[in-house]
Amino acid sequence: MAETSGRKRRGGGRAGAAARRGGAVIEQMPWRLPVNTDRPTEPLGPEGVEAIHEGAMRILEEIGVAFLNEEALGILREAGCKIDGDIVRFDRHWIMEMIAKAPSTFTITPRNPDRELTVGGDVMLFGNVSSPPNYWDMEIGKKVPGNREMCRNLLKLTQYFNCIHFAGGYPVEPVDIHASVRHLDVLYDKLTITDKAMHAYSLGKERVEDVMEMVRIAGGLTEEEFQAKPRMYTNINSTSPLKHDHPMIDGCLRLARRGQAIVVTPFTLAGAMAPVTMAGAVAQSLAEALCAIALFQYVRPGIPCVIGTFTSNVDMKSGAPAFGTPEYMRATQMTGQMARFYGLPMRSSGVCAANVPDGQAMWETSNSLWASVQSGTNMVYHAAGWLEGGLIASPEKFIMDCEILQQIERYFEPETFATTPDDIALDAIKAVGNDGHFFGIQHTQDRYTTAFYQPFLSDWKNYEGWEAAGGIWTPERAHHMFKEIVANFEEPPMDEAIREELAEFVARRKAEGGAPTDF
Amino acid sequence: MAETSGRKRRGGGRAGAAARRGGAVIEQMPWRLPVNTDRPTEPLGPEGVEAIHEGAMRILEEIGVAFLNEEALGILREAGCKIDGDIVRFDRHWIMEMIAKAPSTFTITPRNPDRELTVGGDVMLFGNVSSPPNYWDMEIGKKVPGNREMCRNLLKLTQYFNCIHFAGGYPVEPVDIHASVRHLDVLYDKLTITDKAMHAYSLGKERVEDVMEMVRIAGGLTEEEFQAKPRMYTNINSTSPLKHDHPMIDGCLRLARRGQAIVVTPFTLAGAMAPVTMAGAVAQSLAEALCAIALFQYVRPGIPCVIGTFTSNVDMKSGAPAFGTPEYMRATQMTGQMARFYGLPMRSSGVCAANVPDGQAMWETSNSLWASVQSGTNMVYHAAGWLEGGLIASPEKFIMDCEILQQIERYFEPETFATTPDDIALDAIKAVGNDGHFFGIQHTQDRYTTAFYQPFLSDWKNYEGWEAAGGIWTPERAHHMFKEIVANFEEPPMDEAIREELAEFVARRKAEGGAPTDF
Repeated sequence: MAETSGRKRRGGGRAGAAARRGGAVIEQMPWRLPVNTDRPTEPLGPEGVEAIHEGAMRILEEIGVAFLNEEALGILREAGCKIDGDIVRFDRHWIMEMIAKAPSTFTITPRNPDRELTVGGDVMLFGNVSSPPNYWDMEIGKKVPGNREMCRNLLKLTQYFNCIHFAGGYPVEPVDIHASVRHLDVLYDKLTITDKAMHAYSLGKERVEDVMEMVRIAGGLTEEEFQAKPRMYTNINSTSPLKHDHPMIDGCLRLARRGQAIVVTPFTLAGAMAPVTMAGAVAQSLAEALCAIALFQYVRPGIPCVIGTFTSNVDMKSGAPAFGTPEYMRATQMTGQMARFYGLPMRSSGVCAANVPDGQAMWETSNSLWASVQSGTNMVYHAAGWLEGGLIASPEKFIMDCEILQQIERYFEPETFATTPDDIALDAIKAVGNDGHFFGIQHTQDRYTTAFYQPFLSDWKNYEGWEAAGGIWTPERAHHMFKEIVANFEEPPMDEAIREELAEFVARRKAEGGAPTDF
Repeated sequence: MAETSGRKRRGGGRAGAAARRGGAVIEQMPWRLPVNTDRPTEPLGPEGVEAIHEGAMRILEEIGVAFLNEEALGILREAGCKIDGDIVRFDRHWIMEMIAKAPSTFTITPRNPDRELTVGGDVMLFGNVSSPPNYWDMEIGKKVPGNREMCRNLLKLTQYFNCIHFAGGYPVEPVDIHASVRHLDVLYDKLTITDKAMHAYSLGKERVEDVMEMVRIAGGLTEEEFQAKPRMYTNINSTSPLKHDHPMIDGCLRLARRGQAIVVTPFTLAGAMAPVTMAGAVAQSLAEALCAIALFQYVRPGIPCVIGTFTSNVDMKSGAPAFGTPEYMRATQMTGQMARFYGLPMRSSGVCAANVPDGQAMWETSNSLWASVQSGTNMVYHAAGWLEGGLIASPEKFIMDCEILQQIERYFEPETFATTPDDIALDAIKAVGNDGHFFGIQHTQDRYTTAFYQPFLSDWKNYEGWEAAGGIWTPERAHHMFKEIVANFEEPPMDEAIREELAEFVARRKAEGGAPTDF
């Protein structure tokens, strides 16, 4: 084909290309904010939407949600909610009035303003795997606790891949760093290795304030500039059923007061922390999220909030969580309908139960990622690198997932379904007629290099070519790529004075003892 | 979980279950005709549909399609088409008039009437991989030419899995059987090993007539009964661009005259046998299919016809076909819109370019299968077992694909998104309140065993459990299952007199020399 088309090689092979583009190992698609214009898949009719809404409202009115946070209870009492111990019951009109204050679309601007994100509308963003305590790669060959080097390597992948738009929590928990100062070291790594949007765990006031301060410093921002628009976000989970814990709410209130974005993601496993029926689990998840978002809107009207879903089901045999299942897909689609009903941006995830990056991992992850597309999800957490229901992070899985994410980005490109006369190509069809082929004609020549998705990991050689190249299965190809990317990685530019200020902040806060570890 | 729920084990473990149900190795979903009620994903607006239709019509009117079949040329001349050598140009009104005669829904009734299929509407059917010349399994560990034993084993999987609705072409080409009698031996195997809907290759009149005769015998049917409704089908490919070869048209005409069903599937690889632009490739594919279907409707008005799509793109680097790509997905969705525009049932495929059943195989296959769902496809060819762009059949891939197919079937079940009061489960949520869990409550107990999809191949154990069970990756698990299924396989019942009549037919036709091999 290279011969018949006369198409120019992009020159010098992999090594040459890498040298020219400064550390590039693969040819990947450019950074962009993907736009999902597919009409969402909507399993619910209007009466289904109404039934789930009614369910969520009655949960909030009749059962209530526990807020294990005195400050929140005080605020909600002031707002007129009914408080009984730590249980808060809400009036649906107040909930809807507060929710209406949340923007349907907002931006997050990280230290590199070229990486500014739009969250909401038909924009779909992908983030790296967050928070697994363990790590697996093909070289180690088994599940091991995460450490700082593993975390740094996964952050390099987060930065390297243009299809990853935001940095989630720690891509693996570096348990070799003491918990009191872990946030300082990892945020230093995150802020220097990546220039993408940052996240803070809501795990105590010191951590939250430290992270906000480090993001402010990394951006070279005054406090006023930091607060002027969202520079970062937090993501909290409720403690299902129907409970919000102290540090989560505390962290969100701190971010809200400094104008930063909040994602509220109940973790409602149907049959365990939520009803065994998917619509019930969705209704409960919505109730948990909506009351927290209402609280934040009351405190700071208009603060950016995202409604998250993490509704899946358990394994009937073991009670263990299952991910990327048919029920997960439907729950995600239903939550998408409800997020649009409430006018809120939505978060879902790229998930699987598989323990290694094999076929099962890919069908479960594909199921969850296509459900994200079908649901109109705006932020896809864990979009690359997740295994074992979130207990393992894997660089091979990360790279394999990025191949799927790029395909989704390409799938969104209008050229794939354009119908201009040039696309219908009647003249080209006429020129080729009933014999011959389209390889060499001008219509093909003019479009050949950009007409189709070009994979970086999929091997499209025939069997003999694949065998001659070593007969390497997908995860091993990904492993080699991982080593190459890390070996050639170049950090994004950062002003030296800012780097020093960050390092000084970390040193000072470490000297002060970091954060309490009794959370 | 088994303890807390008090749920009864289904008894006796795998071996016990297998013994009870006569050869069952796994617990699978029952046979059903899946109903896809999702609104299709439609990338084209009305003007896009019109542009592609206009393109297809102008191809038929201005360029024409070669029919290398004298009989067809005579019929089309009689019908008023413009004939120039073997090029036929069509009037669009005649095309649309003929197409309108084709039913939008029809049935195929195989020898076991319980396996009757509805083709069209919102029914979605899956067929086994068809026609690879080669075979790969984990025991052999390399690509080898297919043989009769491999073919028989893949037919056993075709019969075994309830999610496989029809038998396509040979699941692997048994090249150890001489081509002159291959159809006789394989059809004997197909008709005795499976009781599902049968296919005939349109490769010469002897083969086509032999297969129809064997299907008639296997069904215990008189010729009148055989012709009374579709008992089987053929699938033909055009020779793109814009050409129909002799044996394909001949075979279809023979089936049409005996009332059997026809699938017309152009194989239009964008950039090779079709324009490099996807809409152009789709328009050409439609033109090739529509003119053949129009011919069959003219010969036998109302004969069941399915419009197939096999539009994908080539690899920019090698010119080799690529499958399960973003462009493939869009082409399939666009063809779905056009099939509905023309009122015809639609066929697409489960496809990948991967050479082994690894992660790449699964994301490519998932992409193509979800595109089938999104497009409203009625018949999914190659839905299980295909590798290397259709050049390899693999039993491991077959079983892995069936896990995805079952998940699609479960995804369609209305219970996954039902919103009755029982589904919203307000009383259950109230009972559990803000503490505790849903494991043990009555609402969960009542629904637990059927609430969620139960995989047969996915391993949902945690890493430690998976490792303790041998740490087996997906394809190896599938391989073990393959061996067990084949070892325990029991043929569906067949009347002994019919079996003898079939065997006698095969013996007689072999004695007569079978079919010519100069096709």
